[in-house]
Amino acid sequence: MPDVVALAGGIGAARFLRGLVRAVDPTALTVVANTGDDLRLHGLHVSPDLDSITYTLGGGVDAERGWGRAGETLAVSTELRDRYGRPAWFTLGDRDLATHLVRSEVLAAGGTLSEATARIAAAWGLGFRLLPMTDAPVATRITTTDGRDLHFQQWWVGERAGPDVAGVRLEGAADARPAPGVLEAIAAADAVVLCPSNPVVSIGTILSVPGIQDALADRPVVGVSPIVGGAPVRGMADRLLPPDQLSAAGVARRYAGFLDGWVMDTRDADLADEVADLGVRVAVTDTIMTTPEIAEAVARAALGLVRPWS
Amino acid sequence: MPDVVALAGGIGAARFLRGLVRAVDPTALTVVANTGDDLRLHGLHVSPDLDSITYTLGGGVDAERGWGRAGETLAVSTELRDRYGRPAWFTLGDRDLATHLVRSEVLAAGGTLSEATARIAAAWGLGFRLLPMTDAPVATRITTTDGRDLHFQQWWVGERAGPDVAGVRLEGAADARPAPGVLEAIAAADAVVLCPSNPVVSIGTILSVPGIQDALADRPVVGVSPIVGGAPVRGMADRLLPPDQLSAAGVARRYAGFLDGWVMDTRDADLADEVADLGVRVAVTDTIMTTPEIAEAVARAALGLVRPWS
Repeated sequence: MPDVVALAGGIGAARFLRGLVRAVDPTALTVVANTGDDLRLHGLHVSPDLDSITYTLGGGVDAERGWGRAGETLAVSTELRDRYGRPAWFTLGDRDLATHLVRSEVLAAGGTLSEATARIAAAWGLGFRLLPMTDAPVATRITTTDGRDLHFQQWWVGERAGPDVAGVRLEGAADARPAPGVLEAIAAADAVVLCPSNPVVSIGTILSVPGIQDALADRPVVGVSPIVGGAPVRGMADRLLPPDQLSAAGVARRYAGFLDGWVMDTRDADLADEVADLGVRVAVTDTIMTTPEIAEAVARAALGLVRPWS
Repeated sequence: MPDVVALAGGIGAARFLRGLVRAVDPTALTVVANTGDDLRLHGLHVSPDLDSITYTLGGGVDAERGWGRAGETLAVSTELRDRYGRPAWFTLGDRDLATHLVRSEVLAAGGTLSEATARIAAAWGLGFRLLPMTDAPVATRITTTDGRDLHFQQWWVGERAGPDVAGVRLEGAADARPAPGVLEAIAAADAVVLCPSNPVVSIGTILSVPGIQDALADRPVVGVSPIVGGAPVRGMADRLLPPDQLSAAGVARRYAGFLDGWVMDTRDADLADEVADLGVRVAVTDTIMTTPEIAEAVARAALGLVRPWS
């Protein structure tokens, strides 16, 4: 059976992956997730993108928000805030906290993030393999035009992406190595799929880990545009992308060096030629993945751009 | 004003301390608590005795149980058990967990248990000083007659004190030093009060930390019997004390080397002479401390046995 690797951010990727696991054999699928958004809160290691994928594919996500747990409560974080005066800008639900405790305990015992992730994925019965992009501590940092250097989550969640962005860097990336299995999975992949995630702080972050982008060079790479009609489907890519890349074609241009196929929304059909001119095969379809069925159609459209699915 | 030091276990001590803080100036009171029962759960440092004291004196305890938080919920521990298959023999409520997170974060950052305790005590507005007996990692271990070596909490909570006890030891005690301020407080104390706590695994554990029992030698030491009518008021002292010490007089005999005054329940009045023969002054009163007022009367009876209160 064909092997597939997906590079994934959080919520948008998770919604797409609901379809990808229907389009391929999950046991032949490896999902490599961004960990640049990871943060420590109250001494715990929080991995927002890994968890969004796990909860969504494991059937435990708060479907309306797209992150966190369904039926969630906030007893611990309320106590941390009201009794202990701890910062509460990042929501930590009680059920969610159990995941962070399990992860943090593995790490505190000398285990790796890969090991913690495998343990959590097993508890959720994920049928595919979920890997962090790296086991190394990396952090996406946002430099604001008002001269501050913020952790990505402080900028995104804490300040609601308010301050204008002067630059983005992945702290620790130079010393990071891909997590065990990442390069092997890419090398063996019949297709590498770029999920419809933020091109800068999700996919771009994964590609910043030395070795990963190089590994894509000789693989069939397809992607799904996270930009529809000139705006991100969700999130804040518009706050991070240069204006000339803020389109389905603009993002394809970012990936042009290794991209073989690109799925764009029907609303962007007029940009198909621009992408084709990059030497990239194009599929145009409905990419607003409100249901797993739509997500499956998008996944099939993406895979259809590369053998052995075409 | 007279300075007082109290050596304290958990629930029984906390109920007595509700009265002691009414009988003395809390700002002149130092409570030294047993940490031999401390354990790590899900990577967090749990200090049951420190927390029973804090929650009781801070007004947040579950009054009926005498431990844990009032209005407590179990969302995190339920998730840990049901989703992640983690052991659930030790109840960790959600609000309680916030305390363990704060403590564990201080420790993970290189802080001491004393520092974590001070921070938690401040959040609860405790008017007295609460110190752990030591900042060193120590653990009360129970050797059972069926040949097992269990952490105290595994024996007490996990197995409900079922297995017969062959021996008790405080792992790490030899290398432990009293926490900063403990010996200084004892040296300056006008009275050291032994709370009505388990003589073996609470008071005995504190006295196992090198230096503490020696420091009592020239101080006025009074205690309140945890044994009433030949049985512990609560807990499992009967499972740990040799039969000849399982009485208000028997416990006084354990402490005879440094004990100056002893408060016994009216039901044990017939044992007063036996204690007096040890050279210990005796007060007999109602020691079932169902209200702070009764606890205050017990505290005043204890202090009345030593100057400057007599």
